[in-house]
Amino acid sequence: MIIIMRRSATEQNIEAVIAKIRDMGFEASVSHGTERVVVGLVGKCRQMDAAGQFRSLPGVEDVVPVTKRLFHTSRHYKKENSLIDIENIQVGGEEIVVMAGPCAVERSDQVFFTAMAVKEAGAKVIRGGAFKTQDTPEDFPGLGEQGLEILNEAKKETGLLVITEVKTPQEVELADKYADIIQIGARYMQSYDLLACVAERGKPIMLRRGIMSSVEELLLSAEYLMNRGNNRIMLCERGIRTFETLTPYTLDLCAVPILKRLSHLPVIVDPSHGTGDARYVPAMAKAAIACGADGLLIEVHPNPKLALSHGFQAIEPQQFIDLMEELRAIARAVGRRL
Amino acid sequence: MIIIMRRSATEQNIEAVIAKIRDMGFEASVSHGTERVVVGLVGKCRQMDAAGQFRSLPGVEDVVPVTKRLFHTSRHYKKENSLIDIENIQVGGEEIVVMAGPCAVERSDQVFFTAMAVKEAGAKVIRGGAFKTQDTPEDFPGLGEQGLEILNEAKKETGLLVITEVKTPQEVELADKYADIIQIGARYMQSYDLLACVAERGKPIMLRRGIMSSVEELLLSAEYLMNRGNNRIMLCERGIRTFETLTPYTLDLCAVPILKRLSHLPVIVDPSHGTGDARYVPAMAKAAIACGADGLLIEVHPNPKLALSHGFQAIEPQQFIDLMEELRAIARAVGRRL
Amino acid sequence: MIIIMRRSATEQNIEAVIAKIRDMGFEASVSHGTERVVVGLVGKCRQMDAAGQFRSLPGVEDVVPVTKRLFHTSRHYKKENSLIDIENIQVGGEEIVVMAGPCAVERSDQVFFTAMAVKEAGAKVIRGGAFKTQDTPEDFPGLGEQGLEILNEAKKETGLLVITEVKTPQEVELADKYADIIQIGARYMQSYDLLACVAERGKPIMLRRGIMSSVEELLLSAEYLMNRGNNRIMLCERGIRTFETLTPYTLDLCAVPILKRLSHLPVIVDPSHGTGDARYVPAMAKAAIACGADGLLIEVHPNPKLALSHGFQAIEPQQFIDLMEELRAIARAVGRRL
Amino acid sequence: MIIIMRRSATEQNIEAVIAKIRDMGFEASVSHGTERVVVGLVGKCRQMDAAGQFRSLPGVEDVVPVTKRLFHTSRHYKKENSLIDIENIQVGGEEIVVMAGPCAVERSDQVFFTAMAVKEAGAKVIRGGAFKTQDTPEDFPGLGEQGLEILNEAKKETGLLVITEVKTPQEVELADKYADIIQIGARYMQSYDLLACVAERGKPIMLRRGIMSSVEELLLSAEYLMNRGNNRIMLCERGIRTFETLTPYTLDLCAVPILKRLSHLPVIVDPSHGTGDARYVPAMAKAAIACGADGLLIEVHPNPKLALSHGFQAIEPQQFIDLMEELRAIARAVGRRL
Repeated sequence: MIIIMRRSATEQNIEAVIAKIRDMGFEASVSHGTERVVVGLVGKCRQMDAAGQFRSLPGVEDVVPVTKRLFHTSRHYKKENSLIDIENIQVGGEEIVVMAGPCAVERSDQVFFTAMAVKEAGAKVIRGGAFKTQDTPEDFPGLGEQGLEILNEAKKETGLLVITEVKTPQEVELADKYADIIQIGARYMQSYDLLACVAERGKPIMLRRGIMSSVEELLLSAEYLMNRGNNRIMLCERGIRTFETLTPYTLDLCAVPILKRLSHLPVIVDPSHGTGDARYVPAMAKAAIACGADGLLIEVHPNPKLALSHGFQAIEPQQFIDLMEELRAIARAVGRRL
Repeated sequence: MIIIMRRSATEQNIEAVIAKIRDMGFEASVSHGTERVVVGLVGKCRQMDAAGQFRSLPGVEDVVPVTKRLFHTSRHYKKENSLIDIENIQVGGEEIVVMAGPCAVERSDQVFFTAMAVKEAGAKVIRGGAFKTQDTPEDFPGLGEQGLEILNEAKKETGLLVITEVKTPQEVELADKYADIIQIGARYMQSYDLLACVAERGKPIMLRRGIMSSVEELLLSAEYLMNRGNNRIMLCERGIRTFETLTPYTLDLCAVPILKRLSHLPVIVDPSHGTGDARYVPAMAKAAIACGADGLLIEVHPNPKLALSHGFQAIEPQQFIDLMEELRAIARAVGRRL
Repeated sequence: MIIIMRRSATEQNIEAVIAKIRDMGFEASVSHGTERVVVGLVGKCRQMDAAGQFRSLPGVEDVVPVTKRLFHTSRHYKKENSLIDIENIQVGGEEIVVMAGPCAVERSDQVFFTAMAVKEAGAKVIRGGAFKTQDTPEDFPGLGEQGLEILNEAKKETGLLVITEVKTPQEVELADKYADIIQIGARYMQSYDLLACVAERGKPIMLRRGIMSSVEELLLSAEYLMNRGNNRIMLCERGIRTFETLTPYTLDLCAVPILKRLSHLPVIVDPSHGTGDARYVPAMAKAAIACGADGLLIEVHPNPKLALSHGFQAIEPQQFIDLMEELRAIARAVGRRL
Repeated sequence: MIIIMRRSATEQNIEAVIAKIRDMGFEASVSHGTERVVVGLVGKCRQMDAAGQFRSLPGVEDVVPVTKRLFHTSRHYKKENSLIDIENIQVGGEEIVVMAGPCAVERSDQVFFTAMAVKEAGAKVIRGGAFKTQDTPEDFPGLGEQGLEILNEAKKETGLLVITEVKTPQEVELADKYADIIQIGARYMQSYDLLACVAERGKPIMLRRGIMSSVEELLLSAEYLMNRGNNRIMLCERGIRTFETLTPYTLDLCAVPILKRLSHLPVIVDPSHGTGDARYVPAMAKAAIACGADGLLIEVHPNPKLALSHGFQAIEPQQFIDLMEELRAIARAVGRRL
């Protein structure tokens, strides 16, 4: 439960709220936001009853029960959008940031060719998996550190930043050495051991929503990362599992305006995993920009049919170049640039 | 199962396919499309075995097992987009058609005020429920025929066409008298008795996807309508039920490019029911246009807080006017107009 | 919202609650249960605020916001199980009632043979569809009135009662003439027009949960029927739609103890539709009895492979006879009989 | 794809199948089961086409495309039930094995009291979490190694075996030292790094189905474990996420007969997590036994209201004792014992 104080609230008002929380046997966490003070009641209490008790105290503007566990990630804590600076780029601002590349790093020429093409088209970050989350045991596990070296070479050649995904503490250590953004995959969104390990590196984090995770649970994991002192968090919608079977996942684009309303963190959409089908990637990429996404993660492969991982959802470099043109027009239409 | 003949297929080739189907104990339905002949095998057969037998016949280009039950609605039957003419408007063409108005017709002034505002902003059709599908028994049931009269008056005043929803044969009869488009609601998408009753009126039909219906089931219901001779069908995505609870439904926007790929019928999106929350309607309306929707159904109410039905998902006239400006920019960006 | 009065509450206490409800602009519905008086607040109010106001009034025991719309169906209204008498049988008591028969009535000998077999094995009711809910337009639509006549003949021969499903007012009229229990199908669970039409006939009703309907929505529809004066309602769990695809539906057996806790109405389970696969029907029938179901609806067909409807989920008469033996043992183990 | 050879198949027949697989560019994995030889085609091939080619070879009985990736876990590989011996108990045989204890190990007296009560009632294994999977960051993380020591002490006192859950390699090492069964939680069901780490310890494994994982995905993870040489795998159904919100999960009991048909591995049901509500645990435990489960995992806490983790789903020792009596009767009714 979060108790939002009025702008006009005095120190005494705030102290009284804190005292009441302690009287009830809970802990209070006070946070001085840009506009006002917000007091968090930490612990589980029967919210309905407690809310009424605080609402009547002097200086209290509102009591928000539903987001009680969301604090640093919420708009109550920070009203304006968070701008995340990563070397020479900024995520969350007027410019839409596109990250593109193969699902898995396979060979040096595959990555270089793709990197040059997506750079040319306007992408700012190269993506590529070195440690793959396998759908089945026979799936390609990735090249490991060698894959990271290839990505790093591509960075040197093109100036693109590098994003890559991790699953274990050892992988975090390696990714920290080679990558600019560390990605936490959908399957590990609630693995708090891994989250803690990534957070303490201090690198920007791409946190992907689990296929069975609610928007609130995504924010709770982001909250966990922020509680460990890492503020450079990007949230990624990549599709949820539903009864529909024509696509492996249902891309929940409404999560974009919901997340933008509840949180100040940037929101990225992955239309490649989110649809699982290259034929729908352009349409969903355009829709993502139209509804307010701050960036995109798109799988591009020089020859999708030969890809070792998820080839059916990767688009070809030429398609990517054409798509970027279309995205640019949409970005302009919504008052942004790309 | 559909057997697609080559363009070069001779009459004898086609006859041989039909003869084989009959030998197997099934019926054949031959359809002369704009480009080629397509032969449907009617009845349930073990598809995998049968497909092989037809593929080797002369003049056969492809055998499509998965869409066996989808025929008139499919791109195999009609390659180009269907253009649906309704009095002075056309749905499915370059122009995006917006239909707007209150969830339920409540009073004459409510409808007139809304109609004039949405007309002014560029809407072509006024929506309004006279026979409401109630979520709970206490919900407002609608004004019945009186509601249709009010809509009809609004049409006379503004020139807007009228769309309204029906649930029973008696309502179909009344709607046929007053409305230009008859809407079949999500809950009745598979009520074939009602579908047959609506189809035979010959009026254009808006067919809404059920909240637990797959894209294929939506097309099957459209197929049923087309089999009864009505070709003026519009498909409407309005949200499906998933585990996410921040919104009552998850708007499945990927259904738009999927439907456009599989079918020649126009696709309309309803961001009002699809999100259940007025705060997300503008973002989702923009996304719908960006990913290829041919039109929108938007709930507008002069005073949402006083609405008798679903007020929390209706936007105000001024918001609608602003939204239309934004939609116009997106439409231009994707090469269409509004 | 329901305000539950103490047993010791005086008439004045009750009047004060009613007066307060009216002061707030709502209607009060007073109900004298077997144990105590319950006052319903009809209309939508911000529950959290209102609950507190009533809790402090004299004579008030509890305010139950969550089930505000559930009244006649709830245990607050009627503490003991409802016993539903239908001619010579009773549903909801110690005896578990099994209803069995083909999905669709196809021919007279099919029904007679099945009826005699299930009667012999201990079933009390013959089921059979005369008006089929089709999954696709090509599915068998049923024999109509002729099918009802066949069921009625089978009743005369065997003494089994008849249950059959309806979709339209005309079908309700015919079913009322020939059947002992009228079934409302999953797809029509929220078609209030149809519900009203069935309720007023006064016959016992089997209300099936929609594949996309929550347990609360099922109870709301039952509430609607009871509000129209029909108390002989049986609730039927028949599977919901989820992401799992090995079976077409996921049988939600936990709905049985939930419904038994919240409501006094009998709960029936349909393992045939609920699994969609004859191989899993015996296991799920046994589980249903073990967790407290008051009855079962099982599809039995003399030759499932030749069935015109849903043959893959029907078991053969001999399997049914064997299953009944197993069910008898489970019933005894949970202190009931069959 | 699996090619099942006839019992009468000769060595030449088998060689011919292997040669054909290699000709097609795939690898063959030959497995000599108790009854017949089964040849697996490893790699992704267009199954429909390939199946026909093998079906016509001499000595081939059947080609099973759908379970191509399931091999060691399938009934094709091992027809009879796997019996898993763990010290003095056997899982998968006639006797139903109940594992019970608190969600989290909190204190020594809590575990001892519970252990003695569940032992007395007939449980064979004590459960207790030392490394908790937290739903939110504030949740109790568990006592770590100290918790394992407490469980081990309880084992010495009561003779109960110990099951505990792990999330990281370090936890696997500790659990291997203290526990008899290592549990892989729902959230980690597809974390192949962790699976590999657990498999190589050689200890019996309880593999829990993910809340958004299909039955087939559960079997794929079990396959992964068996491929690493560990055959003592138990599969655990613990509820999936659906649209229903009255319970946090929907217990998919039909997974029990499905898993028993597809696989020879024992199936355990966890009605505590599967319902998330102590009030429904007894009903679902009974249903699980009735539909063929080989065992149960039940949360028991001396004082659920004071539990540090998931108290609302734990039953009290006396309830457990009563429940075991009821389960015994059901077990007898289905020809088993407990």
